[in-house]
Amino acid sequence: MNERTRVAIVGAGPAGLLLAHLLDREGIASIVIDSRSREEIESTIRAGILEQGTVEILHETAASTRVLEAGTRHDGIELRFAGAGHRIDFAETVGRGVWLYPQHEVLKDLIAARLAAGQDLRFGVSAVALDDVETSRPRVIARGPGGERIEIEADVVIGADGSRGVTREAVTGPHGGFYREYPFAWFGVLCEAPPSADELIYSSSPDGFALISQRSPTVQRMYFQCDPDDDPAAYSESELWDVLQSRVPGTTLHEGPIFQRDVLRFRSFVAHQLRRGRAILVGDAAHTVPPTGAKGMNLAVADVVLLSDALRALLLEADERPLDAYPDRALERIWKAQHFSWWMTSMLHVAPDASPFDRARQLGELRSVVGSAHGRAYLAEAYTGWPLAR
Amino acid sequence: MNERTRVAIVGAGPAGLLLAHLLDREGIASIVIDSRSREEIESTIRAGILEQGTVEILHETAASTRVLEAGTRHDGIELRFAGAGHRIDFAETVGRGVWLYPQHEVLKDLIAARLAAGQDLRFGVSAVALDDVETSRPRVIARGPGGERIEIEADVVIGADGSRGVTREAVTGPHGGFYREYPFAWFGVLCEAPPSADELIYSSSPDGFALISQRSPTVQRMYFQCDPDDDPAAYSESELWDVLQSRVPGTTLHEGPIFQRDVLRFRSFVAHQLRRGRAILVGDAAHTVPPTGAKGMNLAVADVVLLSDALRALLLEADERPLDAYPDRALERIWKAQHFSWWMTSMLHVAPDASPFDRARQLGELRSVVGSAHGRAYLAEAYTGWPLAR
Repeated sequence: MNERTRVAIVGAGPAGLLLAHLLDREGIASIVIDSRSREEIESTIRAGILEQGTVEILHETAASTRVLEAGTRHDGIELRFAGAGHRIDFAETVGRGVWLYPQHEVLKDLIAARLAAGQDLRFGVSAVALDDVETSRPRVIARGPGGERIEIEADVVIGADGSRGVTREAVTGPHGGFYREYPFAWFGVLCEAPPSADELIYSSSPDGFALISQRSPTVQRMYFQCDPDDDPAAYSESELWDVLQSRVPGTTLHEGPIFQRDVLRFRSFVAHQLRRGRAILVGDAAHTVPPTGAKGMNLAVADVVLLSDALRALLLEADERPLDAYPDRALERIWKAQHFSWWMTSMLHVAPDASPFDRARQLGELRSVVGSAHGRAYLAEAYTGWPLAR
Repeated sequence: MNERTRVAIVGAGPAGLLLAHLLDREGIASIVIDSRSREEIESTIRAGILEQGTVEILHETAASTRVLEAGTRHDGIELRFAGAGHRIDFAETVGRGVWLYPQHEVLKDLIAARLAAGQDLRFGVSAVALDDVETSRPRVIARGPGGERIEIEADVVIGADGSRGVTREAVTGPHGGFYREYPFAWFGVLCEAPPSADELIYSSSPDGFALISQRSPTVQRMYFQCDPDDDPAAYSESELWDVLQSRVPGTTLHEGPIFQRDVLRFRSFVAHQLRRGRAILVGDAAHTVPPTGAKGMNLAVADVVLLSDALRALLLEADERPLDAYPDRALERIWKAQHFSWWMTSMLHVAPDASPFDRARQLGELRSVVGSAHGRAYLAEAYTGWPLAR
C-alpha cells in the first residue's frame, strides 16, 4: 500500500501529535502512525509537570481545551534537606508558573482534537524503516495491524517515536549520540490517598532522594531514589511507605493503597544529529533526560514549536533555511535542559560513590541556592521554562 | 622561656595578622609567631582577588591603608568558551565589586600596621605543639630562631598556620577532615608584560582551562590547567606562551619574559572540627579551596571577622556563647565557598575522565549561566562575596 502526504510522523506521543496539530493549523497535511493502541497511549503514566510555555501553546492552539481548567497551577516547589524545607517561589522570583497535568491527559486531549479535525492518525501501525531520507521524497516503511506492508511517501519524515523507536538510528547512524547513565533510579508509586502537600517536595535525605508529587485530590504520585536493579515487586506496601516516610522527615505522608509501581532508570542522551536530509528527530527520539527537572515532555514541545515553523517555511514558502537552522537552535535548549536535569539530579540525589566531602559540598550547594534570591530565581527560571521560540 | 598573653596566634598570614589587628582594636593583647622570615612572607606570590567585604574591613580598620589606592577595582570578569567571551557584570548584577591587590601586598600592609602598633610579632619562631588546649590555660610550644624552647600560655590559642601547620591536627585529631583532590592543577606564571585584558578572563577551551589575570601595568599573572605531576622546569618560555595563547582563542596575549613559574595543586579540605577547647582554627588551617573561585584569602578574612567578635565576647565580657557558635557559623560560609570553588572549577576545567556527554553538558551549563540574568547574578554574588557577619 503506497500513500503520500506532506509530513509523515512516526509516533503519536506529545511531540508527534502536537506537530500534526500545529501543521494542520497552517494547512499542511500529515499522517501520524504509532505501533501502540489508542488505549495504551492514553493510559501510560508519565510525567505531570507542564512549563508555562507548554501550557500556553496547548491552550492557545486548542491542542488541549482542558489544561487550564483540569490542570493545577503551581507557583513553587519545596527543596527539603538537613531537616528543613525551603520554598522556591516561582511567582515571586520569575513571575511564571508550572501546571500539574499528567502527560496521558495531554495525550487524550491531543488525540481527541486530532481525530475531531480529521487527522489521518493510525494506531497499531509500526514503523520498520525510513528510506530515501536524503532525497526530496523520503518514505516510512511500516506494518499495519494485520501485518500488511505500508509505505508512506512524504516531503519530510519526522521521528517522534521516542527513545526506543526505529527513526533515531536512521538519522544518527549506529553511533547514536552523547550518553550518560546514572547509578540510581526512581521507584515510582501511584496511590489512592489525599495529597500530602500542596506543592511538590524535592527532598534530599541522607538515605537518598524522594519526590512527593500530586496527581488529583484522590490519587498521588511519589518517588524515591532506588537501585536501578531493584525489583518493583520486592517491596511490600508497608515497606514502600516506610521508605517514603523516612525520606521526607518533617512531613507525615497520607498513606493509601498503592495501585501502580515502577522503576524508572535514569539516562541522559542527545543524538549526534537531529537531521539527515528530509528525516528529522524530535522529542525523546532526539534526547532523553532524567526526570528530576521535569523537562522531558516540555523539551519535546519546544522542539515541535521550532520545527513547525521550519516546516511551514519549507513547505509553504520553499525556504529551507529555518530547517537548516533547526538542529543548532533546538540543541541550544536541549543542552540547557540536559544541564538543568543533571544539576537537579546531582544536587538532590545521594550518589553511591559520593565521598563525605561530596555530600557536605552538596548541602553547601543547596544552602547556597535557597539562601540566595539569585539562586532561587536561576532555578525557578529553568524549572518554569525558558521562553519558547515563537 | 615561659610567657603569657591573652591570645596566642600561630601563623603570620592574612588570618593571624588580621585577627591580631582586630583584637588590638578591642584592647586585647596577642602574640603572633611564624616559622618564616618577614622577607619570605612578604615575597611569596599568592592570590590577588579581594572581595568587596575584605577590602572594606581592611580599609575601615586601617589594616591596610593602601588597598583602595594601590588596588584596582574590577567590576566584572569574562567567561570565555566555544569561541566567544561573555562578561559577568558585577556592578550591574549585584552592585558590588572585587579588588585586584596581591596577597603579599596585604601582608606587607598588615605587618607594617602591626609593628607600628607595637604588636609582639615574631618571625623565625616555629610552633612545635599545642598543649593543655582543653583547659583555660592552653599553651603553644615553639622553637625560636636559635633553637630555644618557647612556651606561650594564653587564654586562647589560634591555629592560623595554614594547611601544612601543626595546629590543625591538635584540633582535629588524626582524622583531619573532609577532603577532595582534583585530577588537574594550575601552571602559574608571572611575566613582565603589559596587561592582555582589562579584567580577568576565565577561559574554558577544549584543551583545558586558562586564567588571564593581571598584577600591575608591567607584571601579569596567568595560569593554565596542567597535569598535577607536571614539572615547572620542563617547559621552555615559548612553549608556555604557545599553551597560553592556544587556551584563549580570540585574544592575542602580550608576551614578555617569564620570571616565575609554579604548579598549584588543587585540593578541597574542611577540618572535621574548628575548635577543641581553647584552640581554634582559622583560614587555611581550617580549610583549603581550589583557586578557581578566588576564595582562599577571603574566606580566612571571613573566619577572622566572626572569630574576633567571639573572642571579644569571651575575653572582655566572659560570654562564651559566641565562641561556642563560631564553628557552625563559620562552616556555613566555608561550605558555600567550597561549593562555589568546586562549581567554578568543574564548570571551567576539562576533567581527564570527562565523557563527550559531560563536556557538552558543561557547555550547556556555561550557556545557561551567561544567558540568564539570574545565573550571572548568582555567580557574581558569590564571586564578590556574601556579606560578612559584622
